[in-house]
Amino acid sequence: MPLSPDRISRDIETIAGFSESPPTIGHSRPTFSPSWAKARDYIITQAKQANCTHRIDSAGNVFIHHASLPENQKRWLSGSHIDSVPTGGKYDGVIGIVAPLEVLRQGPVPLELVIWAEEEGTTFGLGMIGSRLAVGAATPASIANFLNRDKENFAEAGRNFGVGLDALESERFNPANYHGLIEIHAEQGPAMWAEGISNAAVTAIAGRKQFHVSLTGQANHAGSTPMAYRRDALVEAARIITSLQRMAHELGAGTVATVGKIDCVPNAINVIPGVVRFTIDLRSPDSAKLAAGEQRIRNFTTEGGSSVGVTCQPTEDQPPVAMDPTIVQRLVDAGVSHRTASGALHDAAILAPHLPTAMLFVASKDGISHNPAEFSRIEDIAEAATVLDRLVRT
Amino acid sequence: MPLSPDRISRDIETIAGFSESPPTIGHSRPTFSPSWAKARDYIITQAKQANCTHRIDSAGNVFIHHASLPENQKRWLSGSHIDSVPTGGKYDGVIGIVAPLEVLRQGPVPLELVIWAEEEGTTFGLGMIGSRLAVGAATPASIANFLNRDKENFAEAGRNFGVGLDALESERFNPANYHGLIEIHAEQGPAMWAEGISNAAVTAIAGRKQFHVSLTGQANHAGSTPMAYRRDALVEAARIITSLQRMAHELGAGTVATVGKIDCVPNAINVIPGVVRFTIDLRSPDSAKLAAGEQRIRNFTTEGGSSVGVTCQPTEDQPPVAMDPTIVQRLVDAGVSHRTASGALHDAAILAPHLPTAMLFVASKDGISHNPAEFSRIEDIAEAATVLDRLVRT
Repeated sequence: MPLSPDRISRDIETIAGFSESPPTIGHSRPTFSPSWAKARDYIITQAKQANCTHRIDSAGNVFIHHASLPENQKRWLSGSHIDSVPTGGKYDGVIGIVAPLEVLRQGPVPLELVIWAEEEGTTFGLGMIGSRLAVGAATPASIANFLNRDKENFAEAGRNFGVGLDALESERFNPANYHGLIEIHAEQGPAMWAEGISNAAVTAIAGRKQFHVSLTGQANHAGSTPMAYRRDALVEAARIITSLQRMAHELGAGTVATVGKIDCVPNAINVIPGVVRFTIDLRSPDSAKLAAGEQRIRNFTTEGGSSVGVTCQPTEDQPPVAMDPTIVQRLVDAGVSHRTASGALHDAAILAPHLPTAMLFVASKDGISHNPAEFSRIEDIAEAATVLDRLVRT
Repeated sequence: MPLSPDRISRDIETIAGFSESPPTIGHSRPTFSPSWAKARDYIITQAKQANCTHRIDSAGNVFIHHASLPENQKRWLSGSHIDSVPTGGKYDGVIGIVAPLEVLRQGPVPLELVIWAEEEGTTFGLGMIGSRLAVGAATPASIANFLNRDKENFAEAGRNFGVGLDALESERFNPANYHGLIEIHAEQGPAMWAEGISNAAVTAIAGRKQFHVSLTGQANHAGSTPMAYRRDALVEAARIITSLQRMAHELGAGTVATVGKIDCVPNAINVIPGVVRFTIDLRSPDSAKLAAGEQRIRNFTTEGGSSVGVTCQPTEDQPPVAMDPTIVQRLVDAGVSHRTASGALHDAAILAPHLPTAMLFVASKDGISHNPAEFSRIEDIAEAATVLDRLVRT
């Protein structure tokens, strides 16, 4: 049967109805929650109706392929996640499931759909647990202390959903079974929508460096301390924030820098700030830009002449992940005319060291994400499904 | 007997011992607390030993003069306060009491010492209640809803300490009895100490304008939102903070601007700040500078080209208070070689509209105030007492 935007839309709306919160305030599917389980069951049932068979691995990841696909035939892997942030949108993760599902409905294809068991990180405080366990980037021991709100870890909470970490070693995910992975995902940024681009091939997933900066000046009376005698930690913070912005614009090429968190002590209207602490989040798909950014951050925070003491502590250093250029080219050949980089992390970044991997982005209206107002056009999602269908058949 | 620095030091140390907190962590004398009462009793007792008589007015303010001073003889008024901020220092307020006390010990002089009942504002959430009630700048009704931590208002908490607001009208403070007021106080700023100035005549008490600024951008993903698409409320805040600093330096002449309080929403390392709220505290002894500063603040906060929405709400507007030039000149004639302005508020600002008023500042080590580390040199305090003694005798 032909690929149907209406069926994709129905899948999205049905899954959106499985929510721990009223859908009017947003869609909430914590991993292993009843709503998450209903969404997983729905996809498995839909796949069965398309003559597919499924397998749940010991990490709780679901693999679905056509029943007629010979066991030893190499195939493409495509999938994403159905867990959500609290009161999130309908599209994040879900479109990367329903697009390959619709491709599977077209009849036998060398394609396996994967539902990674956990991606967002908001259930256990660590993201991408399903894909990490699959490739050995996480172990039962390394995730044992990440607990959900019921104080259960991944193994405990997933017991009734196929998770059995004792079997992890013996039935390890085998990359040799696959040509490669293609993850379809909403962009979660504004650029494609603003530029009228419906689909784009992702060439790299940005690396991320994070820092905690602490500025120590001197708290003092806001009335009786002349300007020349001040050691104002917030004024120094403002200087660094402004420098960071300029730096990110100058580095360009997808590099972004954000001060998202700032705390001021004593934080009183009539007291000069004595201590200010803030975070820096620096991302780039280009490791040379990341390194240059880090060097400039160190320069900003050690520039002389200030009477405010500064410490800058690196707290994360995750390198960029390049997507497989051959698959990117195949996406282009299959009709994707634009390329971009991903600023956000995805399961694809976990798989990339193990398997040729690429991503296919679908435009997000105004870049809104992790928000019930998230929106992508059904025709853009169907276009991505069509690209995937074309690619796996050629 | 001659004016004695040792006796002044003993008075300061004795009063410092009256504290609701262990003096090792700071000196705490909330108005009407047992420690406050002990400090007041100590001064009255010391004054009695110097042949002085005292009167407590219906607002709880204590007036002390030599018993031999004829009732109808015009006199100088000098005093300050003995209540403290929580875990404050030994000098704030106290030196403005013990210096005139030491002058009274020299024998009959046309001087009245006043202990204003409440100054700091930390007991009831409103400052200078004693002096305000005395001159009618506050009324029993206007202060009725300001409560201490025992949920008592000033009238209730002061009942056992001479407060009887029903009598306020009938025994109103009469400015005609006085030549003028001279309040001796620690500078609470670093300038005099840094410049080696022990005493300075205050020519004006700065006015204060305060504002609440609210910036509304858009919270968004720190990874997937390119720099060009951001509406970052914190970056806009940094721009305004930097502009404010430059403005205060440019306006000069004692003008200071402070952003003391800042709050960022959602305040998360990986989310672009959507909303930032901060305060502005602008002070100047020159009302033209204050007006110019306010105009420039309005310009900063409405400058075009930004995609971040700004509101700027004035929350306080207190004009500068000029000190009486004749008294300032008399202070100079009595040996004070420097002049300055006060950035902080004092009881003198309340009295100035009613009575010729000036202040005499004593240097504060490194400007530290409202802190147990507050320090002023005994010889500098004794110098101020000597100036007062000389002035009231000529």
